[in-house]
Amino acid sequence: MIKILVINCGSSSFKYQLIDMATKRPLCSGLVERIGETTGKLIHKKFPDTAEEKKFSFELPFKDHYAGLTTVMDKLLTGETAIIKDLKEIAAVGHRVVHGGEALKKACLVTDEVKKIIKDLFTLSPLHNPANLMGIEVAEKLLPHAPSVAVFDTEFHSTMPPEAFMYALPYEFYEQHRVRRYGFHGTSHQYVSRKTAEFCGKAKDQFTMISCHLGNGCSIAAVKNGKCIDTSMGMTPLAGLMMGTRCGDIDPAIHAYLAKTTGMDIKAIDDTMNKKSGLKGICAMSDMRDIHSAIEKGDQKAKLALDMFCHSIRHYIGAYYLELGQIDALVFTAGIGENDEIVRANVCANLEHLGISIDLAVNDKRSGEPRKISDAKSKIPVLVVPTNEELEIAEQTLIVTKA
Amino acid sequence: MIKILVINCGSSSFKYQLIDMATKRPLCSGLVERIGETTGKLIHKKFPDTAEEKKFSFELPFKDHYAGLTTVMDKLLTGETAIIKDLKEIAAVGHRVVHGGEALKKACLVTDEVKKIIKDLFTLSPLHNPANLMGIEVAEKLLPHAPSVAVFDTEFHSTMPPEAFMYALPYEFYEQHRVRRYGFHGTSHQYVSRKTAEFCGKAKDQFTMISCHLGNGCSIAAVKNGKCIDTSMGMTPLAGLMMGTRCGDIDPAIHAYLAKTTGMDIKAIDDTMNKKSGLKGICAMSDMRDIHSAIEKGDQKAKLALDMFCHSIRHYIGAYYLELGQIDALVFTAGIGENDEIVRANVCANLEHLGISIDLAVNDKRSGEPRKISDAKSKIPVLVVPTNEELEIAEQTLIVTKA
Repeated sequence: MIKILVINCGSSSFKYQLIDMATKRPLCSGLVERIGETTGKLIHKKFPDTAEEKKFSFELPFKDHYAGLTTVMDKLLTGETAIIKDLKEIAAVGHRVVHGGEALKKACLVTDEVKKIIKDLFTLSPLHNPANLMGIEVAEKLLPHAPSVAVFDTEFHSTMPPEAFMYALPYEFYEQHRVRRYGFHGTSHQYVSRKTAEFCGKAKDQFTMISCHLGNGCSIAAVKNGKCIDTSMGMTPLAGLMMGTRCGDIDPAIHAYLAKTTGMDIKAIDDTMNKKSGLKGICAMSDMRDIHSAIEKGDQKAKLALDMFCHSIRHYIGAYYLELGQIDALVFTAGIGENDEIVRANVCANLEHLGISIDLAVNDKRSGEPRKISDAKSKIPVLVVPTNEELEIAEQTLIVTKA
Repeated sequence: MIKILVINCGSSSFKYQLIDMATKRPLCSGLVERIGETTGKLIHKKFPDTAEEKKFSFELPFKDHYAGLTTVMDKLLTGETAIIKDLKEIAAVGHRVVHGGEALKKACLVTDEVKKIIKDLFTLSPLHNPANLMGIEVAEKLLPHAPSVAVFDTEFHSTMPPEAFMYALPYEFYEQHRVRRYGFHGTSHQYVSRKTAEFCGKAKDQFTMISCHLGNGCSIAAVKNGKCIDTSMGMTPLAGLMMGTRCGDIDPAIHAYLAKTTGMDIKAIDDTMNKKSGLKGICAMSDMRDIHSAIEKGDQKAKLALDMFCHSIRHYIGAYYLELGQIDALVFTAGIGENDEIVRANVCANLEHLGISIDLAVNDKRSGEPRKISDAKSKIPVLVVPTNEELEIAEQTLIVTKA
């Protein structure tokens, strides 16, 4: 039984799953938060999302990520939380690394050279790559026997053609400063593309689809014969769709205008566009469930936020439908995509001219399984396919370490 | 015979046409350049674009716009250039005004109140509205008998619904700083919409189409039953499609990244995005004719620029096709749209799944007339319809002054 530890490391927190590759199920999962603060928190679940799920919660300080992961290893080995007898049972560690740039286009074994490249990409991914590298270094210390594999959020999008990834900015910005579209949520789009092809009984590399990852962050990918040819996120995860707190696409002249009219500096403007915009900017709520409740109570700004959100999704679906030619499926995934039937219904409304129509009753049913929500007359299957980025990382880790 | 003078005023230049509203043809047209410099230039054409066309060119200094328009009036009245006997023959003056904001949504007679609003919009349109207002004031002085009418570039887009015109930024940016999508090229999209409906023998207010205005500036409008429901330009004319020197849509996080990595300030970044980007940024050429020549000689960056340009146009056609439902026509207009068969062919390639296909031989034929370039099997007529913003301004001016 091969067990792979998946680590997704943030600047003051990390998530982990220990996945049994035979069943493809997590034996345990958890979250370490508030690293470096006086009180940290560890939530650990054994057999998550099963009948035997057991949840444990600990409040204790974590000086740093090393201390956090040390505690997690201890929980894996001892007491009620234990799930393995020896750390050597962990065959490999798969790390989510946000940015692979143009140099790292495929999941790979972490070497000194790879670490150097991840570090070299700190300017492009200042929030994520430093944390991701820290996670790698901590795991190497604690689990010296287990190979570390880096799996990149940008990887799946590395097949985009130049006309899709280049910005119409001075060419030297690309050459000298690496300004281009990279795209993110790659592990999710990749996982969902494979799962959808499987679900439809077709070969992955002959499957063409539009993948809508709608969660806290949102992005859409145009997938042609299994390969990404365009995506809505850009050089950073700020671009494209409207999101929980991120603005998505706007007029690029707004920055200079705001600087002039409000006196904000470029840092404050960037911060506002990342953290105080999107759904939150319009209606002061960033969670779609709160927005639906507010709409029921007559909140006009919540209604506007929902309409804008669906409008931005439809914009990209239309653009990618044109570019892809005939498509085999339109797919929704991630928190909102999997669980929000209202968003799905609004996005799919009045699309009969594209050959898309959904069965509203089927759409309303909740499920954790891949499922079709289009109706009998829809030429294009519309599907909900739950994503699983951790499993995708684990599977890629297994492939890399076996190779 | 009603004659209307149309003025399009820039900061150091202005264009004019004197249009005979019976024939809808210009009696003369011209351009005054380098106002305020030691040597200015006036180009004046009698009966432009006809067999009797006569072109005159004068080099002389124009202290200001008033001096420039005084000279033009003199040319209209005397010598070889003369076209009228008395300035009173000019029934009205139609002015292109770029920004009408939310207060001026329809062409209107210029009053003190209207001038105040145009002035109030200087922050939103710092390059154009001041020049446009100057043109109005100069014309009022020189032609006190003729009513001045302001026709706005933003007007046609004022029917967009909130989900199309709002940005996902903090709501107070809209309320306090008027940050929203306004759209431009309105007189062109409006003219072309009407002309296209006429050409197809349908009523304008039951005609649904995608209007692609591709010139130095480029924008696309989604027109449903004669009304604009979405457009690619934004708060300013920088947004949307890739253009000659403008970048169009990019990741809004690029500004802060460039500030950090290059040390450019927000003004320099804005300037670069407006003047050194677009086609020019990619291949150092902003004229599509030069780009085609360079491609023939094997210039790879010119090819990339063309591919990116067509990719950005296709993106918006796809988005608007989805939003509009069935469309009655896809229309190309303005310099590139009317005269560049390569761009049109590339934009329309592989769109059979949308019911769009063009006849390449017909597409290759140049003409100044509205014409169909789609082939027999195309479900959606694809048309080339020459635009005429001056005539649109004159016609709106006539309507307003008659009312």
